[in-house]
Amino acid sequence: MKEQSRFGFMREVFEIGPGYNIGIVGATGIIGRTLLSVLHRRKFPVGELHIYASPESEGKWIETPYGQMGVEKLNTRKPPHHDLVFLAAGSSVARTWGWRFARRGVVVIDKSAYFRDKSYAPLIVPEVNPDYIDVNTMIIANPNCTTIPLVTVIAPLHREYGLKNLTVVTFQSVSGAGRGGIVALTNELESNDEQPSAFKHRIANNVIPWIGEGYKGSSGEELKMIRETRRILNLPRLPVRVTAVRVPVVVGHSIAVHAQFRRSVTVSEVRKILMESPGVELVDDPEAGKYPMPLDAAGQDDVLVGRIRRDRGRQGLALWISADNLRKGAATNAVQIAEIVVSKRFNPPSPLSG
Amino acid sequence: MKEQSRFGFMREVFEIGPGYNIGIVGATGIIGRTLLSVLHRRKFPVGELHIYASPESEGKWIETPYGQMGVEKLNTRKPPHHDLVFLAAGSSVARTWGWRFARRGVVVIDKSAYFRDKSYAPLIVPEVNPDYIDVNTMIIANPNCTTIPLVTVIAPLHREYGLKNLTVVTFQSVSGAGRGGIVALTNELESNDEQPSAFKHRIANNVIPWIGEGYKGSSGEELKMIRETRRILNLPRLPVRVTAVRVPVVVGHSIAVHAQFRRSVTVSEVRKILMESPGVELVDDPEAGKYPMPLDAAGQDDVLVGRIRRDRGRQGLALWISADNLRKGAATNAVQIAEIVVSKRFNPPSPLSG
Repeated sequence: MKEQSRFGFMREVFEIGPGYNIGIVGATGIIGRTLLSVLHRRKFPVGELHIYASPESEGKWIETPYGQMGVEKLNTRKPPHHDLVFLAAGSSVARTWGWRFARRGVVVIDKSAYFRDKSYAPLIVPEVNPDYIDVNTMIIANPNCTTIPLVTVIAPLHREYGLKNLTVVTFQSVSGAGRGGIVALTNELESNDEQPSAFKHRIANNVIPWIGEGYKGSSGEELKMIRETRRILNLPRLPVRVTAVRVPVVVGHSIAVHAQFRRSVTVSEVRKILMESPGVELVDDPEAGKYPMPLDAAGQDDVLVGRIRRDRGRQGLALWISADNLRKGAATNAVQIAEIVVSKRFNPPSPLSG
Repeated sequence: MKEQSRFGFMREVFEIGPGYNIGIVGATGIIGRTLLSVLHRRKFPVGELHIYASPESEGKWIETPYGQMGVEKLNTRKPPHHDLVFLAAGSSVARTWGWRFARRGVVVIDKSAYFRDKSYAPLIVPEVNPDYIDVNTMIIANPNCTTIPLVTVIAPLHREYGLKNLTVVTFQSVSGAGRGGIVALTNELESNDEQPSAFKHRIANNVIPWIGEGYKGSSGEELKMIRETRRILNLPRLPVRVTAVRVPVVVGHSIAVHAQFRRSVTVSEVRKILMESPGVELVDDPEAGKYPMPLDAAGQDDVLVGRIRRDRGRQGLALWISADNLRKGAATNAVQIAEIVVSKRFNPPSPLSG
């Protein structure tokens, strides 16, 4: 069905079937595109779909799993109505649009860092703390793309053994910096000329131990991981030591974890716990060449975990994580959150059914 | 000067000038070549030079900073005489040739892991423990290419603050696996076809969290770092937690270090200590884009250190290291050892001069 849009061009109204009216802001970006594909693949009940992006993209048509779609304009004076909107853009878009949508009754799921420290916006990893979403929640924050896989793996171990401290070192792919990161690495691999890039230094054939703006010697990425891990695990004083590093990998963040717990851990028990944990896939037979790697994690929803070993003392544990930073680190986590919202807000269990 | 060699071909006898008679076993390998260049650049007093390699290379001529040189045969029945020989080959060559040379009075400086746990062979980083070499030392072991930069940085801090424990995560370049590692990465970047490689998995666009043969869940590389760090620092029970990871970088190993000391550390004092430490270069202004990176470390003798920051508590310290694994991680360290041998063994200070 076509109709005259209020912006003067013909637009498709995507009435896909019975389901919810969904908006995606930042739909042309790398996470926006992944969101579209994850929504489709997980058969999320999308009834009507509207996509938005930066002004340069307005009016463009893009390929989506739901067919070709036109990028609409976000009108500040009359924000569109949706049941649920995904903000897959930066903090400034979240600041501008988050409450504008929420005030109109649109549930907002934001990927940026903007709401992550706001007490009114729960910071959610669906496998870990889904209960922080309730029927009144209007804005939900997605954690950082390294924090999500970390807590997905650590939370079930914390429940069993009581986490005492964490030391983590990350190996983060260039797609964590958006499409510009991928372009930078690709260009550098093809040519040795210095070119303007998403990164301050060459990333091809290099590693860069600094991500984001810093404060007192720690990088923004490191501070995010510390704050968000504490908030999600509800351990506000947990000692977390982090070094965050960019590596020349296109997709897939990896994390070396050295943790200490309050109770003794055994490797076989840890393996059993993780095997039974949702969203986690155990890949752990290093002598046979089996351990998580970004190449294998890319394109998967699950967080891969392996290299599980005792680490100096009965309470010490080391392990290694790889996860797709665009999927579980971003889009998949957001869609899982939307699934919880739908079940709690729009399809609440009947008071009689309990 | 040419003479008929005992192997039937004409060979050059490299009488370079006043100095010592030096042999290099494994001279055609990547570390052997770097050794030749470092010897030349540091103006080591090479009098006569003989180079050896695997049987396939015998009789070949290679370019060296001392001119074209022929690769000689190592004759098991009649080991050649030298003042000093560098073994830049694997453990099996060290096992076969180490004592054969040493018994003839040739001082042996070995790069392989073979002698690193032998009590008669000191394990030397010249900035850290040169005094373990004395006039009678016949075999000297070079530590692993990640252990050398780590202890070069940590030893002066340990002297000041007393090291309590170490957590390290490495980012190791493909040249750590020899020329085959470089070939693997280069081939993979040029083609997507699966090819036999120095690594068990693709390394281009990937990271591999397993280096060497393993034991009880730890990789060989991790066990080496633990054992060698303890031996060099003379802290046999030091808690050392390690994850060793291969990254798609040609030259330059990096290390994320999270350390705890017995006494309180201050960042400004740590910077001062490291600035005055031999073999260390401080690169530490992250907000201005200045931190150690493998691209900058490659081709340098010094170990780059930066990202120095307090790490949870007064005794905690985090820092980041990059060093050229072929230079300070291997060849430079070996030549520095040779310089000590020469000064102690062949030019001992006169008993009257003291």
